[in-house]
Amino acid sequence: MNNKASNNKASAGRFFEDFSLGEQIYHATPRTITESDAALYLALTGSRFSLYCNQEFAKRLGFKASPIDNFLVFHIAFGKTVNDISLNAVANLGYAELQFYIPTFAGDTLSVMSEVIGLKENSNGKTGIVYVQSKALNQNGHTVLSWKRWVMVHKREQQMLNSFEVKPQLDPKIALDSLSVPLGYSSQNYDPQVSGEKYVLNDYQLGEWIDHIDGISIDDTQHTMATNLYQNNAKVHFNQHQMSNSRHGQRLVYGGHVISLCRTVSHNGLANAQWLSAINAGSHLNPTYAGDTIYAASQVLEKQNLGSGVGVLQLRTLGFKNIQWQAMQSQFEMELDGKKSFHPQLVLDLNYSVLIPA
Amino acid sequence: MNNKASNNKASAGRFFEDFSLGEQIYHATPRTITESDAALYLALTGSRFSLYCNQEFAKRLGFKASPIDNFLVFHIAFGKTVNDISLNAVANLGYAELQFYIPTFAGDTLSVMSEVIGLKENSNGKTGIVYVQSKALNQNGHTVLSWKRWVMVHKREQQMLNSFEVKPQLDPKIALDSLSVPLGYSSQNYDPQVSGEKYVLNDYQLGEWIDHIDGISIDDTQHTMATNLYQNNAKVHFNQHQMSNSRHGQRLVYGGHVISLCRTVSHNGLANAQWLSAINAGSHLNPTYAGDTIYAASQVLEKQNLGSGVGVLQLRTLGFKNIQWQAMQSQFEMELDGKKSFHPQLVLDLNYSVLIPA
Amino acid sequence: MNNKASNNKASAGRFFEDFSLGEQIYHATPRTITESDAALYLALTGSRFSLYCNQEFAKRLGFKASPIDNFLVFHIAFGKTVNDISLNAVANLGYAELQFYIPTFAGDTLSVMSEVIGLKENSNGKTGIVYVQSKALNQNGHTVLSWKRWVMVHKREQQMLNSFEVKPQLDPKIALDSLSVPLGYSSQNYDPQVSGEKYVLNDYQLGEWIDHIDGISIDDTQHTMATNLYQNNAKVHFNQHQMSNSRHGQRLVYGGHVISLCRTVSHNGLANAQWLSAINAGSHLNPTYAGDTIYAASQVLEKQNLGSGVGVLQLRTLGFKNIQWQAMQSQFEMELDGKKSFHPQLVLDLNYSVLIPA
Repeated sequence: MNNKASNNKASAGRFFEDFSLGEQIYHATPRTITESDAALYLALTGSRFSLYCNQEFAKRLGFKASPIDNFLVFHIAFGKTVNDISLNAVANLGYAELQFYIPTFAGDTLSVMSEVIGLKENSNGKTGIVYVQSKALNQNGHTVLSWKRWVMVHKREQQMLNSFEVKPQLDPKIALDSLSVPLGYSSQNYDPQVSGEKYVLNDYQLGEWIDHIDGISIDDTQHTMATNLYQNNAKVHFNQHQMSNSRHGQRLVYGGHVISLCRTVSHNGLANAQWLSAINAGSHLNPTYAGDTIYAASQVLEKQNLGSGVGVLQLRTLGFKNIQWQAMQSQFEMELDGKKSFHPQLVLDLNYSVLIPA
Repeated sequence: MNNKASNNKASAGRFFEDFSLGEQIYHATPRTITESDAALYLALTGSRFSLYCNQEFAKRLGFKASPIDNFLVFHIAFGKTVNDISLNAVANLGYAELQFYIPTFAGDTLSVMSEVIGLKENSNGKTGIVYVQSKALNQNGHTVLSWKRWVMVHKREQQMLNSFEVKPQLDPKIALDSLSVPLGYSSQNYDPQVSGEKYVLNDYQLGEWIDHIDGISIDDTQHTMATNLYQNNAKVHFNQHQMSNSRHGQRLVYGGHVISLCRTVSHNGLANAQWLSAINAGSHLNPTYAGDTIYAASQVLEKQNLGSGVGVLQLRTLGFKNIQWQAMQSQFEMELDGKKSFHPQLVLDLNYSVLIPA
Repeated sequence: MNNKASNNKASAGRFFEDFSLGEQIYHATPRTITESDAALYLALTGSRFSLYCNQEFAKRLGFKASPIDNFLVFHIAFGKTVNDISLNAVANLGYAELQFYIPTFAGDTLSVMSEVIGLKENSNGKTGIVYVQSKALNQNGHTVLSWKRWVMVHKREQQMLNSFEVKPQLDPKIALDSLSVPLGYSSQNYDPQVSGEKYVLNDYQLGEWIDHIDGISIDDTQHTMATNLYQNNAKVHFNQHQMSNSRHGQRLVYGGHVISLCRTVSHNGLANAQWLSAINAGSHLNPTYAGDTIYAASQVLEKQNLGSGVGVLQLRTLGFKNIQWQAMQSQFEMELDGKKSFHPQLVLDLNYSVLIPA
């Protein structure tokens, strides 16, 4: 950052001082999503959910074709915001109120814009928290998804601005019966022999934990190719030369790649939970590096029958590294002096809602 | 495997006790193959065979478009069977009678099913051999390919079931004149300047060896991306955390990736052997790991003119690692006390039939 | 090379003795370029230029669709020449007079041919320099691009042939006002909010340097997958077994991959320099290996308004590894005893011309 010449045309990214409340930011390089992105996503994550890789299956569910995986759509939309919001982020603190409205198909072009909805200085004078609400529109101007997110951002100079602190309201979850169901979606011709499991809404019990058993190891190329695919250019993922001097000593895996790997292994036990409707809350609790092996387990938090054969599960999926659920199960969350603390190998805590046949 | 809770919805895969003779298994997650899969296959293997990467060339040979590479089709079809057949396999023992009937084009969706045609307990009480016959159908219900395969599978518990031993008949090869030739296929407009070599059926001598000269090194990301692309979720390829405690100490390269790399280097000397008709026999003789460099050499076993300018070569391709053919040539197969033994750097012995202009 | 049996059907590639002046070489395996190649290129390089990844943006600029990135087109066309020209190259010495005439779109099939335009023996008797002029045609017979290139090639045997030395004329650059502008190209509806920066022709000053700030690290899988995608089969990139015995001790990164990474980071400061018209000169000054982090800086050499809102910038982009511009700036080029010498971490010196709104 300190090598930015004063009149250099290249940008070193925004700092905390560069954000103002209510500001509207149009994010550059909207991009067209293709079926090639879907194939690459599959190769980079190993995803096996039928809706996204089987045209015949998708058509029987009422889609005109296989939609682009909503997790992939989110990563691409999110990636657009990085250059303006989080290029100088210390940490992604959280997501909330992420909701999908309509499917994205190969050929659609997504544009993303954000509004600054909250600002809060940290008392150290070095950083602040920026809250944004972002949305992605397709080429027809329809909103595909929207979400809120907050990040800790470096200040350009250490100082207290003593600006008003504005924290936006963040709903802990989107009510299950207010979720958007894709137009024409029907589970009537749903074939569990194709999707791989027989379990539907009624088979899942509130509070039930599912150990997804399998682990997937991460290599540097996989996470950087995935992150490139999303055109997310955050320096921490790509620049080994700089990261080797950081406290990490190496490149950080984009948290979204960890989300995708947890989703992949969750196929084993949740194969019919196909359409991602909402992410209610998400936190990256510890960093992930190349060489780590990701495991996951999911708990059923809520469920609801939306009628017409459509059900929705609200799930909590935990991702952890280099340890299996059997060992992690009893110790992932602890109270220390009345304060919640997380196991150092716990990397993800994701709360989300997915459609499932009822 | 031992972390499977008794009522966990995730499956730990089938064990020897779970197979019964004559059982029909429909494999989950049939998937649509796209031109993106073809591009990824090319990027992951370096394949240069014109039929599969040049639309104009394919059309001049009578295809409506470039077909999907038969090796890629096989890997995807094979990958579908893993979750049901070989998730708990100790080893893939062999393939036989693999035959291609019709081409696959971008947009086709393949479904795969298997019948258990043989079962044999091993005397150690720990493992058994499962023989299956599998076939892949496209979305129109036409059979694209079929094959037989046998794998050594763990038992759930160490015990002898004393079941009948049933070994299926396995033909050592499919007769050259009974191979399916793709409808409309013609070598009349075959242009060797495009494909890269002048050699056609008559130029190859029975018994002739071809040293393919070039070597290709394997990285962990390459083999895991390729294996992801095939949605083959065998644990040994993906889970470094578990494999570091195995006798291998690391992830194993999917044997099919080694087949593809041998096929890639075989372009040098066999550039006109384009359409894979059959795999008569295949064995993975030693494991391959990231860091290994694969070389190959091929011997001409048989050849036949099928008429109308279409010829077929039956080939034996050997794959070996970190050693060139010059050094390997004299020692790849040895007799030790009357028993055949293979050089520890020999990784593949593949017997297959390919069409070539006559 | 020494393992080539005299009657082996596989080729060990051409040596200096195999080239003759005026010889025409048709390069094998012309190939069809697809939108999947574009997606893979994006995932392997992180490119964000809107023309190549946003169908809507491309159409507003007068293209029928997003063209294939000219850097990708060049790599594929170049890759075709390797098997005939540079399989046994000691070094790629340079490029000149590379010019794009028309865009390439998904579905186009490129064929490449070369003429030997110069030959020069080196006094050591071991190597010689081969100069070729190459061009790529699409399936309609239209020339897409042409270029000159010279490489140092091994001799089969150490000897002096005492052949005539013929050095072709190499123009230092293609005049800016003679560059081909794609048919229908117009900057009238150019939206800098989409492309990411506001700078157009007039904002750039002659002599101005732009520090592109960001660095991208290279992994072995990334450069080999990219090089596979281009079907460039030069041994130095793929064979770890052989390269571990070379003076490099490891695989070399294809110089073209370094060009692409420099182009990627140049988006920061040159986001509107979309269409590559020409490469006037290019040199790879030092080798690049896996693990290196590439940075870049660009200088504006010339600029011209071609009328109708179309401008062109002639740029010099330097690529360097594991060092930032601030430190490199003062020392990249030195005079030692009247001879120009380059910093050992300087890897690329590229002189090229790109269209930009005027």
